[in-house]
Amino acid sequence: MTITTTDPATGVTSDTGIEATTEAELARITEAAASAFTALRGYSRAWRAGLLRALADGLEERRGELVAIAHAETGLAETPRLNGELSRSAYQLRLFAEAVEEGGYLEAVIDHAGDTPLGPGPEIRRMLVPLGPVAVFGASNFPFAFSVAGGDTASALAAGNPVVAKAHPSHPLTSRASFDALRTAAEGYGAPAGILGLVYGQEAGAALVADPRVAAVGFTGSLATGRILLDIIETRERPVPFYGELSSLNPLIVSAGAVAARAGAIADGLFASFTGSAGQLCTKPGLAFLPRSATALVDAIVARAAAAEPQPLLNARIHDAFGAIRGRLLADGGADSLVEPHDGPAGITCSPAVLAIDASRVTAAVAEEAFGPLLVLALYDDPAEIAPALAQVPDSLTATVHAEPDEWDDLAPLLAELEATVGRLVFNGYPTGVRVSWGQHHGGPWPATNSVHSSVGVSAIRRFLRPVAWQDAPATLLPEELREDYTGIPRRVDGVLTLATLGE
Amino acid sequence: MTITTTDPATGVTSDTGIEATTEAELARITEAAASAFTALRGYSRAWRAGLLRALADGLEERRGELVAIAHAETGLAETPRLNGELSRSAYQLRLFAEAVEEGGYLEAVIDHAGDTPLGPGPEIRRMLVPLGPVAVFGASNFPFAFSVAGGDTASALAAGNPVVAKAHPSHPLTSRASFDALRTAAEGYGAPAGILGLVYGQEAGAALVADPRVAAVGFTGSLATGRILLDIIETRERPVPFYGELSSLNPLIVSAGAVAARAGAIADGLFASFTGSAGQLCTKPGLAFLPRSATALVDAIVARAAAAEPQPLLNARIHDAFGAIRGRLLADGGADSLVEPHDGPAGITCSPAVLAIDASRVTAAVAEEAFGPLLVLALYDDPAEIAPALAQVPDSLTATVHAEPDEWDDLAPLLAELEATVGRLVFNGYPTGVRVSWGQHHGGPWPATNSVHSSVGVSAIRRFLRPVAWQDAPATLLPEELREDYTGIPRRVDGVLTLATLGE
Repeated sequence: MTITTTDPATGVTSDTGIEATTEAELARITEAAASAFTALRGYSRAWRAGLLRALADGLEERRGELVAIAHAETGLAETPRLNGELSRSAYQLRLFAEAVEEGGYLEAVIDHAGDTPLGPGPEIRRMLVPLGPVAVFGASNFPFAFSVAGGDTASALAAGNPVVAKAHPSHPLTSRASFDALRTAAEGYGAPAGILGLVYGQEAGAALVADPRVAAVGFTGSLATGRILLDIIETRERPVPFYGELSSLNPLIVSAGAVAARAGAIADGLFASFTGSAGQLCTKPGLAFLPRSATALVDAIVARAAAAEPQPLLNARIHDAFGAIRGRLLADGGADSLVEPHDGPAGITCSPAVLAIDASRVTAAVAEEAFGPLLVLALYDDPAEIAPALAQVPDSLTATVHAEPDEWDDLAPLLAELEATVGRLVFNGYPTGVRVSWGQHHGGPWPATNSVHSSVGVSAIRRFLRPVAWQDAPATLLPEELREDYTGIPRRVDGVLTLATLGE
Repeated sequence: MTITTTDPATGVTSDTGIEATTEAELARITEAAASAFTALRGYSRAWRAGLLRALADGLEERRGELVAIAHAETGLAETPRLNGELSRSAYQLRLFAEAVEEGGYLEAVIDHAGDTPLGPGPEIRRMLVPLGPVAVFGASNFPFAFSVAGGDTASALAAGNPVVAKAHPSHPLTSRASFDALRTAAEGYGAPAGILGLVYGQEAGAALVADPRVAAVGFTGSLATGRILLDIIETRERPVPFYGELSSLNPLIVSAGAVAARAGAIADGLFASFTGSAGQLCTKPGLAFLPRSATALVDAIVARAAAAEPQPLLNARIHDAFGAIRGRLLADGGADSLVEPHDGPAGITCSPAVLAIDASRVTAAVAEEAFGPLLVLALYDDPAEIAPALAQVPDSLTATVHAEPDEWDDLAPLLAELEATVGRLVFNGYPTGVRVSWGQHHGGPWPATNSVHSSVGVSAIRRFLRPVAWQDAPATLLPEELREDYTGIPRRVDGVLTLATLGE
């Protein structure tokens, strides 16, 4: 089977010349990854940090080519969108390089032998070690930062694992070009063969998840596909961790005070946030609670949306789902249409849609995530209507609240409810434009993501690591980081956290 | 349906007078847990540390009664076994109290707002928050330390979650008495009602795992039951984390040098380790690789096992499985019997069994975990036979190696293989007698446990926590630990780890 690609700007589908990966090829790729995993044990953290930087450099060296290919496959703007995203991918790799050098992520602990309240205790030394080959399934909407060269790949490699990525059907050429750039850089750096693999086609993807050599799966995509992959994992003889980011509605709440203070700025910000990248962002605010009295704010959002030109969507599936979900929101959800979307003259495009509903009438039927520039306004008479409405909708990656200082006390109970249902709370800002940093958390309760870990930020590395304890081990058999005189990383010694000493 | 209990020492089953929990009662218990979860948000870490210490005190105050009840239900010796286990349960609670006070477990991170290589970044503050009500399924073999008052309960409470435990069918009265002791202590401390719940019966246990109010499940038990609970979780509208410790063979390897240096000590130690608590420990070494030339060592183990009296097993199911698995090891696994076990005159008892096989003939059929005092000796001519044999057996919680200093270099490749398949490596010791400490790791790849987390040691708390990030939050809306001037816990600020300052 040959893989095709479609340019959303024109709607033209063409043959890539790439064949779907066969069973035999998949076995060769995962076997090579397993061998690379063994080989990687022989390299230091410093070496791995260098590898990550080499990969970042490799991406940037081919920036022009990569961005052009991605533009033709996604319809996303070259500047600032795709260039910014490629920079983010490179930055992620370099941030993980820093984290690998710093070493705190190893969670090193030393408990010396000695008497305890329960009697004599042996020496226990513990740190995290890599899991094994990681399968990475990227998303259509981030051809760099959540795909072959994205955060799952960066964090899995940083942890010391090989990666086998599945090429995204919506950007197979970008997947291949990213892979080539990474592989060339890895080879140039002297990394073991098999550290990076790429497979094409749905069947190969399913077989990859079932492959016994695969030790974990990172996935960003739809709830339906995520459930299919989870089912495959459950049929494995040995289940493995599945880290899925599956869907997110990202409620946003605007208080009466915020409307009074800055309705114009909120109209601008909210419009930009729900239509940026044609609304195809995991953190797009899809449901905004506004006071019913905020007619000027509603009018401003409606005016901007009505005046907006159609933008390319990533693929026909998203375009069709956009229309279907909008139809369900109107028919089953009981929403009213404030701005009708329309397609452009050519390609796979759509202009923004705005719907409205009474906050008291929000149900699960109005809470379906619509990828694309669609916003539902939930109009409330009393802020007390918001929490019951939110109880009807699925949990999210983020929730956002706009309010004035004198309102926060009254909003505290609502904020507590929100905290229980999301991974990130945004105050007087917008959830899109996720900062990549040490503390970032891109997660949330199901279905926003695997609930206890993050797929963005330095702690994303924790997903691909597991603890090992060494009991009474001869010093020469310990990992360097656990030896008594090593001082290059933070460690917890007999319960007390100690910082790294300079000079290591 | 009324719950029964059996005294293994006599084999007599009696009615406990306890009714299985009904659907309506379960709903009331989980609803109370959900309310308690909300209430717990209002209490500080210092309060929670005090609660954990009050629970430890509560257990110890009723030590005599609890140990006597557990002895009658499990056949385990009152001293040192059950008294030691109750002390361990209390110690675990107090160790988590220390960890909660210390606060490093919160993984607090602050990224100040500022310019980044990708442009201006908002402020991000992150820490871990509790998941919600946790369902705890204890094990038959640790009526205190892995049951109602055990490590899952302690770590879930430490994280700030209510706990609903399922009473173990093999020790329902111990479950009830432990629960009463904990609840009385919690009430005396002023904890919110609903922070602790207990349910009885298999149906209630299944319904508990399916209950939408339950946010995570901790389970220690059989692979078969674990798979059933996992299947229930998969049918939930919102899956939740499942932390299962399901089975472990715990291979132990003795080198030729170790035999030459200390065969007698190894015979004593290995015999004690595989027969202690009648071999009913998750970390019992079930498969020991010995040089074929070590006939004196084999003879010593055989002599000790042949001379040993029958000991009570926990229940008839374990007794029957012990015989059935031993039969399969002989028939399907190709092992030879060196010591035939025999039952005692009364009750549910068994004496030790020792089997032997050529290391080169080890297959999955010889690698079934047998709960009870059973040891398979795998005799090797060449140490090179060990790694291929281990590749046939499931992954484990632990692996143990006995060797002399001049042998470690040659053993390095084998140690690397072992590290990939277990959670703890033990050197010149025994895997039983798990030290509870900051660095302990009781886990391993499937089916030893949920692979990336531990069920013993301070890091077990991480299973019941999830990250939340606050973006540009007003200071008054932040958790105390994330405010700018708070110095009471370790935090990572702009990428740099900072220690707590004294005096907070």
